[in-house]
Amino acid sequence: MKTALTELLGIDIPLIQGAMAWISDARLVAAVANAGATGVIAAGGLTAGELSSQIRKAKTLTDKPFGVNVMLMAPNKEEIVEVICAEYVAFVTLGGGDPVPYIKRLQASGSKVIPVVPNVKLAQKMEVEGADAIIVEGMEAGGHIGKITTIALMTQVIPHVNLPVVVAGGIVDGRGMAAALTMGAVGVQMGTRFMVAEECSVHPKAKEMLIAAKDTDSVVTGWTCKYTARSLKNALTTKLQQLEIEGGKATEQEIKRLILGAGKKGMIDGDTEWGMIMCGQSLYPITKIESAKTIINTIVDEVKQAINKATALIL
Amino acid sequence: MKTALTELLGIDIPLIQGAMAWISDARLVAAVANAGATGVIAAGGLTAGELSSQIRKAKTLTDKPFGVNVMLMAPNKEEIVEVICAEYVAFVTLGGGDPVPYIKRLQASGSKVIPVVPNVKLAQKMEVEGADAIIVEGMEAGGHIGKITTIALMTQVIPHVNLPVVVAGGIVDGRGMAAALTMGAVGVQMGTRFMVAEECSVHPKAKEMLIAAKDTDSVVTGWTCKYTARSLKNALTTKLQQLEIEGGKATEQEIKRLILGAGKKGMIDGDTEWGMIMCGQSLYPITKIESAKTIINTIVDEVKQAINKATALIL
Repeated sequence: MKTALTELLGIDIPLIQGAMAWISDARLVAAVANAGATGVIAAGGLTAGELSSQIRKAKTLTDKPFGVNVMLMAPNKEEIVEVICAEYVAFVTLGGGDPVPYIKRLQASGSKVIPVVPNVKLAQKMEVEGADAIIVEGMEAGGHIGKITTIALMTQVIPHVNLPVVVAGGIVDGRGMAAALTMGAVGVQMGTRFMVAEECSVHPKAKEMLIAAKDTDSVVTGWTCKYTARSLKNALTTKLQQLEIEGGKATEQEIKRLILGAGKKGMIDGDTEWGMIMCGQSLYPITKIESAKTIINTIVDEVKQAINKATALIL
Repeated sequence: MKTALTELLGIDIPLIQGAMAWISDARLVAAVANAGATGVIAAGGLTAGELSSQIRKAKTLTDKPFGVNVMLMAPNKEEIVEVICAEYVAFVTLGGGDPVPYIKRLQASGSKVIPVVPNVKLAQKMEVEGADAIIVEGMEAGGHIGKITTIALMTQVIPHVNLPVVVAGGIVDGRGMAAALTMGAVGVQMGTRFMVAEECSVHPKAKEMLIAAKDTDSVVTGWTCKYTARSLKNALTTKLQQLEIEGGKATEQEIKRLILGAGKKGMIDGDTEWGMIMCGQSLYPITKIESAKTIINTIVDEVKQAINKATALIL
């Protein structure tokens, strides 16, 4: 599977394990990279020193290319970018703010730069600004989300930029990956699927909950205070939905207090009721804990099967 | 392109022009059917007598198979089903309520029955109840919508039912259709794309607005009063969003009053500010007014191109 993404990053499989705050660390990223795909260390929530340690640790675990994600709402983003430039990683994904001030700087350090964009206009802007590729992420993704879905983004962004487009959001298996490639994507990014990797530090109780979850079990909260995020339904999201839908019953401050820190509480500490288990809308295929290598090999086989079946249709 | 859908309905191209209240009438449906795909007359908003006339008119315009959609929230749904049984159509799609009481009755009249379902559980129920196929429609669709997106539905529903699955929502071109077929769908349903067909009775001002619209130009309103619908941003949706987000500022009654009748006002009368122009989220490919035949031929070419490119990737 040679695509513009495998060429750009020097990888075998056009699949990126996406950044997930707290949980996509050196161990997961290295396991994914060693299996022929590539992974992204999430800098969100890390100090500059912690990120530096994670990058160095990943380099002891793999000699394959991997990336770092810069969360552009983070107050320490300048220091984070400095660390990335000093340590060198193969690529940097950026989301949650304006990536433009960082593109040339990161490229000068040797990294490829891949902003995450929510619509055609910003995709075209990234092309003008010299990004190496872009990621479009649909609102069926986990964590912080926008409004446009994956199919609508693929339909509209891919033909309107001269940049390689990686697709994310609701894609968790090889059929989804095959669909994205068929639409002209150069690869896909998956988060949720890797949350149940053996090498992923998600708390066992949160992994269990993800494995049990169905298509209707994710919910969007935080939209009244710009912390729009998708996560598993639990006591916290039910409370948030009450407060947000019955508007005027809670201040933005009260809602924020419930949300801040909830990701770490849920996914690392295993508080599956009052923490947030961020995840995408495609949950049925999340059925067991497996090694990153097994997950990736299964996906590759599924891609080939799906495309072969489609090929037979048009003969 | 032989699939379980082309076999089931006796059509050449596995593409359904979806039901759109007020606008998918005999003329549009016959044009689509004559081009080798198939169309659906929307019974929503029609009296039993009007539906009967539309079915008869369509039969004078085409000898190809076509369908009718029953809107299960309609107060006259019993009479509508009676007319369908009396007149005979090749297939019936049903949405917005419980299709179970109508499945056997419609099948006894000779129609294939294809319920529209929003999740895996209801898809499996339709299999048990003997439906001939199902349609899953993502929340990027126009008009009344649910919460799950097209990619998430394709990922989760298709492998969990032994029924042919047709996919709708955000699919407006051959790349999207190819993606659905690659995921194992037996065909797709498109609405928005046919709103700009020459044979579609959408008001010219509404067609113009659709052609000018971008990826970020649709919006979801009515969710506080169960009239959740996607339409083009305009004065009405801005007003609704204010009333709905600033909860407590308007009663459900006030919001409903703004919504009821707005579809006809926008799409037929051409009031593009205070009517509702229902449409999906994929709007960039809606670039010109063309015949249904040209639209369909273009889509078929694009499907083949997209699948051929994907095939080359895995060789």
